[in-house]
Amino acid sequence: MTILIKDITLVPMDGKNEVIEKTNIYMDDKIIHIGELRDDIEVERVIDGKNKVAMPGLINAHTHIGMSLLRNFADDLPLHDWLTKKIWPTEAKLIGEDVYWGSLLSIVEMIQSGTTAFCDMYFFMDQVGKALEESGIRGVLTRGLIEEQGKNEEKLDETKDLYNNWHGKGNGRIKVMVAPHAPYTCSPDFLKETIKLANELNTGIHIHLSETKKEVEDSYKNFGKSPIKHVYDLGLFDVHTIAAHCVHVDDEDIEIMKEKNVYPVNNPGSNLKLASGFAPVDKMLKKGISVALGTDGSSSNNNLNMFEEINLAAIVNKAVNLDAVSVPALDALKMSTVNGAKALAWFDEIGSVEAGKKADLILIDMDKPHLYPRHNIISALAYTVQASDVDTVIVDGRIIMEKREIKTLDVEKIKYMAEKHAKDLINR
Amino acid sequence: MTILIKDITLVPMDGKNEVIEKTNIYMDDKIIHIGELRDDIEVERVIDGKNKVAMPGLINAHTHIGMSLLRNFADDLPLHDWLTKKIWPTEAKLIGEDVYWGSLLSIVEMIQSGTTAFCDMYFFMDQVGKALEESGIRGVLTRGLIEEQGKNEEKLDETKDLYNNWHGKGNGRIKVMVAPHAPYTCSPDFLKETIKLANELNTGIHIHLSETKKEVEDSYKNFGKSPIKHVYDLGLFDVHTIAAHCVHVDDEDIEIMKEKNVYPVNNPGSNLKLASGFAPVDKMLKKGISVALGTDGSSSNNNLNMFEEINLAAIVNKAVNLDAVSVPALDALKMSTVNGAKALAWFDEIGSVEAGKKADLILIDMDKPHLYPRHNIISALAYTVQASDVDTVIVDGRIIMEKREIKTLDVEKIKYMAEKHAKDLINR
Repeated sequence: MTILIKDITLVPMDGKNEVIEKTNIYMDDKIIHIGELRDDIEVERVIDGKNKVAMPGLINAHTHIGMSLLRNFADDLPLHDWLTKKIWPTEAKLIGEDVYWGSLLSIVEMIQSGTTAFCDMYFFMDQVGKALEESGIRGVLTRGLIEEQGKNEEKLDETKDLYNNWHGKGNGRIKVMVAPHAPYTCSPDFLKETIKLANELNTGIHIHLSETKKEVEDSYKNFGKSPIKHVYDLGLFDVHTIAAHCVHVDDEDIEIMKEKNVYPVNNPGSNLKLASGFAPVDKMLKKGISVALGTDGSSSNNNLNMFEEINLAAIVNKAVNLDAVSVPALDALKMSTVNGAKALAWFDEIGSVEAGKKADLILIDMDKPHLYPRHNIISALAYTVQASDVDTVIVDGRIIMEKREIKTLDVEKIKYMAEKHAKDLINR
Repeated sequence: MTILIKDITLVPMDGKNEVIEKTNIYMDDKIIHIGELRDDIEVERVIDGKNKVAMPGLINAHTHIGMSLLRNFADDLPLHDWLTKKIWPTEAKLIGEDVYWGSLLSIVEMIQSGTTAFCDMYFFMDQVGKALEESGIRGVLTRGLIEEQGKNEEKLDETKDLYNNWHGKGNGRIKVMVAPHAPYTCSPDFLKETIKLANELNTGIHIHLSETKKEVEDSYKNFGKSPIKHVYDLGLFDVHTIAAHCVHVDDEDIEIMKEKNVYPVNNPGSNLKLASGFAPVDKMLKKGISVALGTDGSSSNNNLNMFEEINLAAIVNKAVNLDAVSVPALDALKMSTVNGAKALAWFDEIGSVEAGKKADLILIDMDKPHLYPRHNIISALAYTVQASDVDTVIVDGRIIMEKREIKTLDVEKIKYMAEKHAKDLINR
């Protein structure tokens, strides 16, 4: 279907224009034209852009969407108790259907808050694939691999199957990468196996790196170096790498990330809530490293609201660096769009609204009291806009949500089934 | 009008119950009864509480609501440039009508995000009073006093007039306090005048204290002591004091605040965005100090969303203290309700939902995808609920907003007039 969005204010994130006032966007699955009205393009649907702002769909570059079933389940606990007493024992009881409904619940939440693509790490990933395909949005599926004697081969095969079943599916909306969970749950040998697999499949790697101080201390104890230096020496960064967290990184780590084009994902909400600390986002950005943004799972956040993360990235780093100019609004927006697309190895197709790219974009309803007056759209998007201001979501040229009504999924059924599966899971 | 809210989940913040499931609340301007249904109370209006959570209306204990006209007007600037090049020159051009429409815009935003009472410091305070009275919500008006040779008497008289015109108005919904702006804008002699006036009017004081590192360093240079010790020595804390910010406070300052029952107001969003730093909230709370929460003005935030501040208070302090148990969910909720009421010297009437107190409460619509599943209501309120989930707002027993429709104000007109006044102000 060819769509025209008329009379819209556009924040294209194209590296050239900050804001384009009163323009028009033509699209099928790709953006066809941005600018003056054109008679030569036949249009099946016109969307009135008045009082709205268009921008690229947000990219949640690190999450665990099946975990929504554990939202608000275990909070205000020390990290170790949270994991060992609450999260892990409950996750051990998960069945595939739980993950399916939990994933759908998360995808609904992501659509309603303007996220059009995400990078997930979990298990029962076929279920996540099914949910993702049905939803119409875009995503990278990765099966989190924790080394377990006797089961390693089987786990690597699972990723191979995942790749064969899902990579490229849904008109190319789905990708698969390899996900060794972390250097503290995977031995050097096992990490090498995952690197080999990623090379064999010609895809990227998704891994947790340097999330906590303890992890870094343990890495020095066990390997005599930081987690980042450790996996660098194993050759992991020769593969395209999405590195979640990178909170406790030193100057040498940052040099390595820059040299090897590593894509760190900052998860400010989760890093704050789990008391992990403050990633040196400003420093990494100034080094020219493409820092992306993520929510992490909704059991440590406790939502998947990328506008909240954008705001956090913009304001938290100012206080950390005692510098009110640190991570300005446009940089925080870039983290959640352009840099997210780069992290997901998808920048040729998404991350900005430009002719030739995929039509993945969102419309913000600016006619809300908290969005008056209109002095600066970029500031408004980073500091003021709420998830609930997202009016319309388009992915691959398809209207996924309009006037906040989701077109592709049965939201009532999903709420019901997610609640049911969450209860069953706890009582199982 | 007597209202019954039926079958509601209540988070009363009464110091006894965390959550009361499936209860009923009867009210006129005060809460009459909470619990089983009663035949002996005649009811004019029944609200269905199914799938909703009731809690005390949020209290924004420090703000400058007229500043909404400067929202998103000047961001990502060093603090000094922000103030001297942008905010102050523009504020110097403000006229009364600007403040009236800006205040109404802010009040609309506050109602829509669940705030039922606020403490304001600005000028043209009669205009704020007019807006507040019309809105039906509750507030403390304070005229920010910056010392100016030859004008001090006149400024103090303005506060006296403000008190005489507004204190107790609107069925007691409006209070007036005395507001010396800060120890760095008011000399010791002038501060003493304001203390005298507060005693004369038998009311409290609202002041900015220890917001930035520079302010504290200057205070040591000028007075040989911290801002808090300085005003303590002047006798300011013998009056009920709302102390905005208290970011850079040491152990002696905290001892003083505890000894004198000072009411610090934490403004996490503003302190982060202006790079002021991190207030030691956890330490103050553990000392038994009643720390309240505020948004500060929307030119340094850039909204008046108290649910955002609750979330920030809960998560930021965890990372600062590297302790995932720091400022748990219930404490953050307490800061925005009970402690806010205490700060505003209003705890006898508001801050919790209890029989005999004023009926100031909000209903949260829990039937949102991001609020499923329901493991823990307290966690949900602090970590997940969005401003837009506020469905109904009741103040003084009057329905101010229902199903997100504001009953007392003309929202369309306010958006239009605020935008117009903001443009006029910039071009004036």
